[in-house]
Amino acid sequence: MSNIKALQWRYAVKKFDAEKILPETKIDVLKQAFNLTATSYGLQPIRLVVVKNKQLQESLKEKAMNQAQLSTASHVLVICIEDHVDKEFILNYFERVKEIRETPDEILDPFKNFLVEDFGKKTNEELAIWAKNQAYLVLGTLLTVCATEEIDACPMEGFLPEAYDELLNLKEKNLKSVLVLPVGYRAKDDIFSSFKKVRRSEEDTIINIY
Amino acid sequence: MSNIKALQWRYAVKKFDAEKILPETKIDVLKQAFNLTATSYGLQPIRLVVVKNKQLQESLKEKAMNQAQLSTASHVLVICIEDHVDKEFILNYFERVKEIRETPDEILDPFKNFLVEDFGKKTNEELAIWAKNQAYLVLGTLLTVCATEEIDACPMEGFLPEAYDELLNLKEKNLKSVLVLPVGYRAKDDIFSSFKKVRRSEEDTIINIY
Repeated sequence: MSNIKALQWRYAVKKFDAEKILPETKIDVLKQAFNLTATSYGLQPIRLVVVKNKQLQESLKEKAMNQAQLSTASHVLVICIEDHVDKEFILNYFERVKEIRETPDEILDPFKNFLVEDFGKKTNEELAIWAKNQAYLVLGTLLTVCATEEIDACPMEGFLPEAYDELLNLKEKNLKSVLVLPVGYRAKDDIFSSFKKVRRSEEDTIINIY
Repeated sequence: MSNIKALQWRYAVKKFDAEKILPETKIDVLKQAFNLTATSYGLQPIRLVVVKNKQLQESLKEKAMNQAQLSTASHVLVICIEDHVDKEFILNYFERVKEIRETPDEILDPFKNFLVEDFGKKTNEELAIWAKNQAYLVLGTLLTVCATEEIDACPMEGFLPEAYDELLNLKEKNLKSVLVLPVGYRAKDDIFSSFKKVRRSEEDTIINIY
């Protein structure tokens, strides 16, 4: 399916077919895409929780205004941000660069020192905003991959993050939940699947300067 | 190209081939993808400026630490957020829903009133953070579409937004520049194209709860 056809095909699913389970090969594509997404400086201040457990999904639903997509989805993806983007986190990135690319220290050091200094100046709130931006970036990646893989999905901001952090034991992993993405197959009788897409016109959203 | 191969193929291009120009059919795909992306509540608080003008690209480069990608790219995309997400902006969305889906007012009104009230409570800073999140979401969409369309790109946060706003006359359109994405073709001698991707392992970034 072409990208545009896929993006037209996708919509925020309101009702999943609870009987249909995504093959793990499809979930693997999403996991790989999550890890391959671009992030600011390549630092990847994000992690993905993949839930396929009806009892837990029921609890997640209760903490998201009882939206049925959470319990009826095949899998629920929870996009989290790292809560401790500190010096160690940044140094670990440069260790990976050194290991994978065999780049010598004298090449890496100036950029490493710049990032450590720059991030050291940021407040916790600024760090959280920065990391959240990356969570939205990966959501865009995942939604686009879902569409071309014909995986149905419903991106969600409307849930109680602190309750999710507790249900998923995120605090002890220094993580905070930011976005939720139930995935699966749309129910045949989800009337929203036939609704026309509502979008501003290209005349209204695109400015050409040629 | 499969999604995973495409995401492995892409990298943040450091040197474009200045002689090669993307066909407008490819740019059209990016414009359509921009407009089809998911956004929070479908409100689309974002606009895209597409620049293909060497003189202007030179000025954009000067305001982005002289990064050569801006002047040598085929086109430069600038992702902007709407600066005035006010009651009128939200009501316009519901006018579109009514027009496109012919949904009656009595169905739309409760959600419309909720959104007007909810957004009315947000500070300008909160609105900007919310809109910026959507800019990152569409960046994820565009980068993924670029990859599968074999369009090279370089996502950039390192530029002077106020200088860009002035160069592109964004203030009078109630827009603010947030992200920049030069697109085109990688130069054959961009050594970065052969570098191995540096990523955390899936063991480190994916948590399965089955």
